[in-house]
Amino acid sequence: MEYNLLKGKRGIIFGALNDMSIAWKVAEMAHEQGAVFTLTNTPVACRMGTLNDLSEKCNAPVIPADATNVADLEEVFAKSTELLGGKIDFVLHSIGMSLNVRKKRVYHDLDYNYLNKTLDISAISFHKMLQVAFKSNAINEWGSVVGLSYVAAQRSFYGYNDMADAKALLESIGRSFGYIYGREKKVRINTISQSPTMTTAGSGVKGFDGLMDFSERMSPLGNATAEECAGYCITMFSDLTRKVTMQNLFHDGGFSNVGMSLKAMTQYNKSFDTDEIDTMD
Amino acid sequence: MEYNLLKGKRGIIFGALNDMSIAWKVAEMAHEQGAVFTLTNTPVACRMGTLNDLSEKCNAPVIPADATNVADLEEVFAKSTELLGGKIDFVLHSIGMSLNVRKKRVYHDLDYNYLNKTLDISAISFHKMLQVAFKSNAINEWGSVVGLSYVAAQRSFYGYNDMADAKALLESIGRSFGYIYGREKKVRINTISQSPTMTTAGSGVKGFDGLMDFSERMSPLGNATAEECAGYCITMFSDLTRKVTMQNLFHDGGFSNVGMSLKAMTQYNKSFDTDEIDTMD
Amino acid sequence: MEYNLLKGKRGIIFGALNDMSIAWKVAEMAHEQGAVFTLTNTPVACRMGTLNDLSEKCNAPVIPADATNVADLEEVFAKSTELLGGKIDFVLHSIGMSLNVRKKRVYHDLDYNYLNKTLDISAISFHKMLQVAFKSNAINEWGSVVGLSYVAAQRSFYGYNDMADAKALLESIGRSFGYIYGREKKVRINTISQSPTMTTAGSGVKGFDGLMDFSERMSPLGNATAEECAGYCITMFSDLTRKVTMQNLFHDGGFSNVGMSLKAMTQYNKSFDTDEIDTMD
Amino acid sequence: MEYNLLKGKRGIIFGALNDMSIAWKVAEMAHEQGAVFTLTNTPVACRMGTLNDLSEKCNAPVIPADATNVADLEEVFAKSTELLGGKIDFVLHSIGMSLNVRKKRVYHDLDYNYLNKTLDISAISFHKMLQVAFKSNAINEWGSVVGLSYVAAQRSFYGYNDMADAKALLESIGRSFGYIYGREKKVRINTISQSPTMTTAGSGVKGFDGLMDFSERMSPLGNATAEECAGYCITMFSDLTRKVTMQNLFHDGGFSNVGMSLKAMTQYNKSFDTDEIDTMD
Repeated sequence: MEYNLLKGKRGIIFGALNDMSIAWKVAEMAHEQGAVFTLTNTPVACRMGTLNDLSEKCNAPVIPADATNVADLEEVFAKSTELLGGKIDFVLHSIGMSLNVRKKRVYHDLDYNYLNKTLDISAISFHKMLQVAFKSNAINEWGSVVGLSYVAAQRSFYGYNDMADAKALLESIGRSFGYIYGREKKVRINTISQSPTMTTAGSGVKGFDGLMDFSERMSPLGNATAEECAGYCITMFSDLTRKVTMQNLFHDGGFSNVGMSLKAMTQYNKSFDTDEIDTMD
Repeated sequence: MEYNLLKGKRGIIFGALNDMSIAWKVAEMAHEQGAVFTLTNTPVACRMGTLNDLSEKCNAPVIPADATNVADLEEVFAKSTELLGGKIDFVLHSIGMSLNVRKKRVYHDLDYNYLNKTLDISAISFHKMLQVAFKSNAINEWGSVVGLSYVAAQRSFYGYNDMADAKALLESIGRSFGYIYGREKKVRINTISQSPTMTTAGSGVKGFDGLMDFSERMSPLGNATAEECAGYCITMFSDLTRKVTMQNLFHDGGFSNVGMSLKAMTQYNKSFDTDEIDTMD
Repeated sequence: MEYNLLKGKRGIIFGALNDMSIAWKVAEMAHEQGAVFTLTNTPVACRMGTLNDLSEKCNAPVIPADATNVADLEEVFAKSTELLGGKIDFVLHSIGMSLNVRKKRVYHDLDYNYLNKTLDISAISFHKMLQVAFKSNAINEWGSVVGLSYVAAQRSFYGYNDMADAKALLESIGRSFGYIYGREKKVRINTISQSPTMTTAGSGVKGFDGLMDFSERMSPLGNATAEECAGYCITMFSDLTRKVTMQNLFHDGGFSNVGMSLKAMTQYNKSFDTDEIDTMD
Repeated sequence: MEYNLLKGKRGIIFGALNDMSIAWKVAEMAHEQGAVFTLTNTPVACRMGTLNDLSEKCNAPVIPADATNVADLEEVFAKSTELLGGKIDFVLHSIGMSLNVRKKRVYHDLDYNYLNKTLDISAISFHKMLQVAFKSNAINEWGSVVGLSYVAAQRSFYGYNDMADAKALLESIGRSFGYIYGREKKVRINTISQSPTMTTAGSGVKGFDGLMDFSERMSPLGNATAEECAGYCITMFSDLTRKVTMQNLFHDGGFSNVGMSLKAMTQYNKSFDTDEIDTMD
C-alpha cells in the first residue's frame, strides 16, 4: 500500500523495541508511505540492538533518550530537526511501564514511588515531549501527535493496575495540550486506544491470554493487530485528518462499544456445561 | 427507612404491572416516604387486576392510559392534578416494549412498523408526556422526572435488538427536554440506567439468564435489584438533588465502568477447561 | 492529493445536493482518489439539476431514490452493483431533515407526525439502507459505511430541535448495526460528528451564524469545513482503518472536548463592555 | 430538612476550610442528618482557626493531617474510628491545589515539580486515603466514598491548567479503586463533578468570574451552589444509593450536557453589538 501519504513529512517515533512493538510497525509503514524520521528509546533499549535493524531498514537515525528527562527530550527534537533537515510533522508516543505491575504490587497495595514512576514514564513524558516541542517550536503547523492508549482509561480491567490511571492521565494531557497546541500552532494531538496487543509490554499484564480471547470474541471485527494500528496512525499523521484533535480514538474492532456479543456469551455459557456445581461467592 | 423524603409531594408513576416491576417498587417506596401519587398503565394492563392491589396499598388512584396517545396523557395529568389536589412534583416513566423482540425479528431483519411502535412506546411517549405536562403547566418548579434506561443505549448487547436504539432515543429526549424544561420551569429530567432486572419485560430478552450472570460477576457490587432502583429514584425525586438534570445515571453496581472483572474472567476461563477443542469461527 | 487511496473501490454516496454539500465534496475527493461510485438523492433533488454536474465530473451515475423507501433502496444497491461492476466497498449517508425545524415548531411544541418524519428520514433511513445492503449481500468484506452526525446527539444545542434526537438515534443505529454487520460480514460502520457546516441544510437552523462563530472560537483548530470532512471520510473508506467500527468520530477542530476557550471567553466578555446594565433573568 | 438520612453513620470529611467550602456545607448537612464525623485538613489550615467553629457546631473532632502522607492518613482513620466508636460509613475527599496555577505557570510552561505536587495533593491523595482505609479495614460494608471533581476532567477549560489532568486522574482512581473496594468489601466510590463554585480554591482560577457567568447561563437550572452540592453528597452517603459506584456524577444544573443555550448565546451575541470591528485572529 504505497500511497505516499506521508511524502515529504518528517517524524519522531518514540518507543519501538522489537518487531512486536506497535511503534516498530508504525516506523515500517511511515517509511513505506514516504516519510523520514528518527527513532528514539531509552539508552538500555537502544543497546539491546534490535532497534538498529529497524534503523537500517528505514534509514532512520536512532537517538537514545530517557523520555522523562527534559534535557534528553530537547536533544531528541534538536537532533531530529537537524538530521531530518527541518521541523517535525508527526510524533508517535508509544511508551508505558509500571513497576507496580512488574513487581506484582496489586492496586490496593501500590508502592507510591512506583506509582510516581508509572505516571512519569507513561503519561507525564507525553507532556514533557509536547512542552519541549512547543517551546523550541519544533513542530510544523498542522503537524500531528499521537499517543497510544487503552480502554482501561475508561473502564476497569482486572490486573491492568495503575496503568489504567496512567492512561487516563495520558488522555487528559492529550486533550489539555491539544487545546493549547491547536490554538497556538495548529498542531493536533490525539490518542489512539488500541486493542490489547501481544507486544512485549502487553504480555506483562496478568491473565493477558484470557483477556485477549475475550476481547477477540467481544469485538465484531476481532482484535486490531499492531500492523493495523500502524495503518490508523498513518491516517492520523496524514493531511486528510487535519481537523481531528483532542480526541481519543478507539481502534479495537468495535470492542469499546460492545456490552455483550453473541460469540463471547456463547463461550461464557460453556463455562456452566460441567458437572461441578458453580457457586458465586 | 421512613425518612419522609417525599413528604408533601405529588407524583405520577407510569408502568407498574406487577410486583416484579421497578415502577411497583418505586410506588411502594414513594408511599413509604410520604408521597401521594397516581398510577397509570395501559387499559389492558389495568384490567389484569394486580395493579389494584398496589393502588389500595398506596392509596393511589389508577388512571388507565395509552402513553403514546396525547389525549390520554392530557387526561392523566389533568386527573392526577385534580385527585392529588395540586400540581405534580415527580413523574416516573418506566415503559418499554418491542414487537420485534416479541416476534423474534432480529436486528438485521426488522419490521419497520414494529420499529416505529418500539420507538413510539419506549421513547417518544417520554416526549409526549413531557410536552403535555409542559403545555398544561402541570409540574411544579423544581419538580423531577425520571425515565428508566439501560446501558444498551451506549453499548451493543446481543439480543437487545431495537430496544437499544429506543433507549438511546429516550436518553436523548431526556437531555433535549431537560434543557427546555429546566430553562423555562426549573423542572429536572434524568434517566436512570439500571442493571438488567428480572421483570416481566426483562425476561423477554433472549439469553437473559446468561447476561444476568455475566452482569452480576462483572459488577463489583453485583446487579442492582428493582428495590434498590426504587431507592435511587426516590433520591432523584427528593429536594436533595435539585441541580441534577439532563443526566443519564448508571445504577448498576459498577457494571458500566468495568471492562473485565476477576470474577467474570475466572468464570469465562472455566469455559476452556474441557476436552472439546475450541475453535473460534 | 492523489494518493489513490480508494483505487479499485466502488461506492454509493447518498445526499449530495449542491457544491456546498458535504456529500458533494466526498464525491469529488473519492473520484480524485480513484473510486467509482453512484450518486443518489430524492427524485425532487435529482430534478433540480445541479447533481448532474457532479455526475458528469465524476463519471458517476445518478439513481433517484427515497431513502425511507425500502424498495427504492433495493434498487439503489442492485443498480449500483450492476453499473459499477461488483459489490460495494463504501457508502456515505448524509441525509437529514426536520419539518419541525422548517415549520418553526419548537421542541416543546413538536408535531408528532413531523417528528416521525424527522426520525424516518434522518435516522431510520440509515437502518433501512444497511438492512437492504445486508440482506442482498451488497457490500464486500471490509467495506466501510459512514453516516454524518453532529455533537447535538450528546449535548443540547439551542434551536437544533428534534434533529438532536434524530442524530442520537442515527449514532445508536450505527453502533447496533455495526455490531451485526461486523460480526457477520466484516463490514464496519461509523458516524462522523462534523463541525457546524454552512450547507443548505445547516443554514436552516435558527441562529446558525452566532453558533458558527462561537464554535469557531471554541475550537482550537477552528471549524472543520466540508472539504476537510471529505478528507476524513476518505480515510474511513480506505484500507487503513479496517478495525475502526461502531465509533462516533468527532471531526470538529477540537470543539467537542473544549469547555471554554480563551478566544470564546474573550469574545463573550466583550458582551459586558457596554453601558447597559446586564441582568440575568 | 431533617430526614435523619445519615442517622447512626460515622464519617470523615477532608477539606473543609471556611464557610465557603463545599466540605463545610457537607459537614453541616451531615450533622443535620444525624451523622457523627471527624474533620481533617492540613496542619496549616487547622491552625487558621475557622475550622474550630465548624468543629464545635457539629461536635466533630478535628484531626490535622497531610493527605499526601500515608502515616498521617493512617492516624486519621485510626483516630476517627476510635473517637466515633466504630468503623467509618462515609468519607468526603474535597482536596485540590495547583502550584502551577498559583505561581502562574501556564500549561505549556509547567514546572514539573509543581505538577507532581498537583497530582499528589489533588488525586493521588485519594488513592492513599483509600488504600489506608482498605488495609486497616476501616470502612463498613456498604460504606460510601465521594471525591469532588470538575468537568475539566473531560473538556478543556481555559486557565484550569494542570488541575484538569489532576481531576482526570482523580476520577480514574475513583473507578479503579471502586472496582476493588466494591468487589472486596462492598464499599462504593464515586466522584461528583460540581459546577464552578466560588470557594477559596475556585476563586484562584484565572477569569473565574466570566466562567461563572457563562456557566450560569449555559446551565438550564443555573450553577449548583456549595449547599446544593452538600445535599447531593448526603444522598450518595445514604443507604438509598448503595448500588451506585465507579461513577462520575455531574451536579451542575445541566451544564455538562449543554452545547449552547439560548441565554448564553443571547449574551454572546451582544458582544458583536458594538461599533468596533471584530476580527478573529
